[in-house]
Amino acid sequence: MDLQSFEHLTERDWDTGASGHLRFAVVGVGGFARRAALPALAASDYCEPTVLVTGSPEATRSIADAYDVSAIVTYDEFADGEAAQSYDAVYVATPNAIHARDATTAAAFGKHVLVEKPLAASVAGADEIVETCDDAGVSLMTAYRMQAHPAVRSLRRFLADGGLGDPVHLHGDFTFPVLAGDRGPDHWRLDPDLAGGGALMDVGVYPLNTARYLLDREPTAVSATTSGEGPFAGIDERIAFQLSFGERTTAAFTASFSGYGTTSFSLVGERGRVEIESAFVPAAERRITVDTDEGRVTFDTPAVDEVREEFDYFAHAVLTGDEIEPDGRDGRSDVEIATATYEAADSGERIGL
Amino acid sequence: MDLQSFEHLTERDWDTGASGHLRFAVVGVGGFARRAALPALAASDYCEPTVLVTGSPEATRSIADAYDVSAIVTYDEFADGEAAQSYDAVYVATPNAIHARDATTAAAFGKHVLVEKPLAASVAGADEIVETCDDAGVSLMTAYRMQAHPAVRSLRRFLADGGLGDPVHLHGDFTFPVLAGDRGPDHWRLDPDLAGGGALMDVGVYPLNTARYLLDREPTAVSATTSGEGPFAGIDERIAFQLSFGERTTAAFTASFSGYGTTSFSLVGERGRVEIESAFVPAAERRITVDTDEGRVTFDTPAVDEVREEFDYFAHAVLTGDEIEPDGRDGRSDVEIATATYEAADSGERIGL
Repeated sequence: MDLQSFEHLTERDWDTGASGHLRFAVVGVGGFARRAALPALAASDYCEPTVLVTGSPEATRSIADAYDVSAIVTYDEFADGEAAQSYDAVYVATPNAIHARDATTAAAFGKHVLVEKPLAASVAGADEIVETCDDAGVSLMTAYRMQAHPAVRSLRRFLADGGLGDPVHLHGDFTFPVLAGDRGPDHWRLDPDLAGGGALMDVGVYPLNTARYLLDREPTAVSATTSGEGPFAGIDERIAFQLSFGERTTAAFTASFSGYGTTSFSLVGERGRVEIESAFVPAAERRITVDTDEGRVTFDTPAVDEVREEFDYFAHAVLTGDEIEPDGRDGRSDVEIATATYEAADSGERIGL
Repeated sequence: MDLQSFEHLTERDWDTGASGHLRFAVVGVGGFARRAALPALAASDYCEPTVLVTGSPEATRSIADAYDVSAIVTYDEFADGEAAQSYDAVYVATPNAIHARDATTAAAFGKHVLVEKPLAASVAGADEIVETCDDAGVSLMTAYRMQAHPAVRSLRRFLADGGLGDPVHLHGDFTFPVLAGDRGPDHWRLDPDLAGGGALMDVGVYPLNTARYLLDREPTAVSATTSGEGPFAGIDERIAFQLSFGERTTAAFTASFSGYGTTSFSLVGERGRVEIESAFVPAAERRITVDTDEGRVTFDTPAVDEVREEFDYFAHAVLTGDEIEPDGRDGRSDVEIATATYEAADSGERIGL
């Protein structure tokens, strides 16, 4: 077993150095943009927030001041190209169903596009984004922050090197009590037309995408069960979904908009098991525990801000011409899988992918 | 939150004191009987191993001597009532499909019956055992050792008292590499005619029964996926099964006969999460971690031998006339659920229970 790959849990294996930086328009200034994205952009090496696009310019003024942002524009002004000379890329954090509108607007002005997950509320929306960015020749990334986390990247190399043998099964959960406390104005997450779904689209994509990333494989079938009541009627307040990754590997995942907030992820392979505590909590200290016949090894990862990592990864790739791994097609795949997962839940049948 | 119930993790809440003890015939002297059951009987307060029933009397001689057992009889002799005056109860540890034969033989002689899990290889076999023991007026227990573990019993009270609020979802796994190392002569576990199935029947019943016990609820639907190849062709070498416990609670469980040996169990409720490490390893030290808004509390349970607890629980109930909770009907339920789980795996459809 080679645990060397875990020794550099804060290092950027992708960072070859780049000159310059990317100026960002943040499109949609909701809770996550305020709490996580803007602080990450401000602290980044290769990015700079220069424009905010919002439906509430006045309410956004103090945010703009705090981050020394030069321009606030409305969505109409954004569509008209206002302040287009002030940004090189957009970070799209509007409701999922609006991503396509904002991404294609940016692409039309030749701007690079980083879209919050899920890429879109539907496969058609994802296709529109991918094709438009392809045609415009701009870079497109889906904001899967876990793929930018050094520890997750190390774990992937460890698994690819056969550290645990072939994977047998995975377990994962993301329970996010979306209505608890003061969660901000993001109640569009409960509107299936805007969100494209419920807990699966918002938080279930974390274990889903992380599994696809770590295994470097695509799921081949899915079964699922959903429930939703009260304010969650009509969406998956709670979902359990079971994926096959070929004949020999399964993943047992859950996601919920209600319940005690917790995240977990584990993988049993033929020769060992790995567990990530606080797996999907943004910028959390994470304990990674690896059990094999040689014993238990525990890695306490420092609190890396993987949102900042994600922004810098994207900007570095744009600046250097490097390939982007969580690209539009990666994001599209999750929307396609989520769509099949809902179909499986509705029909009660296992759906082939 | 009342964590008081966790303070007595080795105490027997069922032990009201009993006079006398129960003499056991161990029917089937395979690996588990040798490694776990006989040592547990020898160390118990209310039990005594007095007879061994085996197809290989000569090979069993040293075992009998080690435990000061007075008689070794063959299965034919057992069926003829030989040494029947030397035991009050039987512990049936033969292959699953043989349980009904041995249990009904014992009941016919008025002996109490403790049957290793799963109760039988089929619902018909389970029914036969339950009805025969009912008619004979003897006590019947399915050997779910987790139900006799003081920590699991404490956790059940904690959950029943609302310690974590309503359950949202559970995760559980039992991966047991049945062919690894020197696992003894129990290869009947790979014969679907003798075992009634594969990993689900042998180890998957642990998370299944533990969930039913902790929630004090019955599952209402199941979806599943199985695979098996090489020596496991024709059985579920690996299984992922997803249970609904009513509309609002799901369980995502996996079990496997191959892969790195590991067991885990966790539950997310509306107000907290609990995780049991080494959940199903016999006589293991277990760490139970409870997370709530009040913080994290960790309980390191001493290595209680729950097989011994199970024997004493059964004998105490027989001696005092107390009710047995993991009774024949409890064992029958798991066989019925397992049968539906295989049907779900074969059909690819969610099966209502």
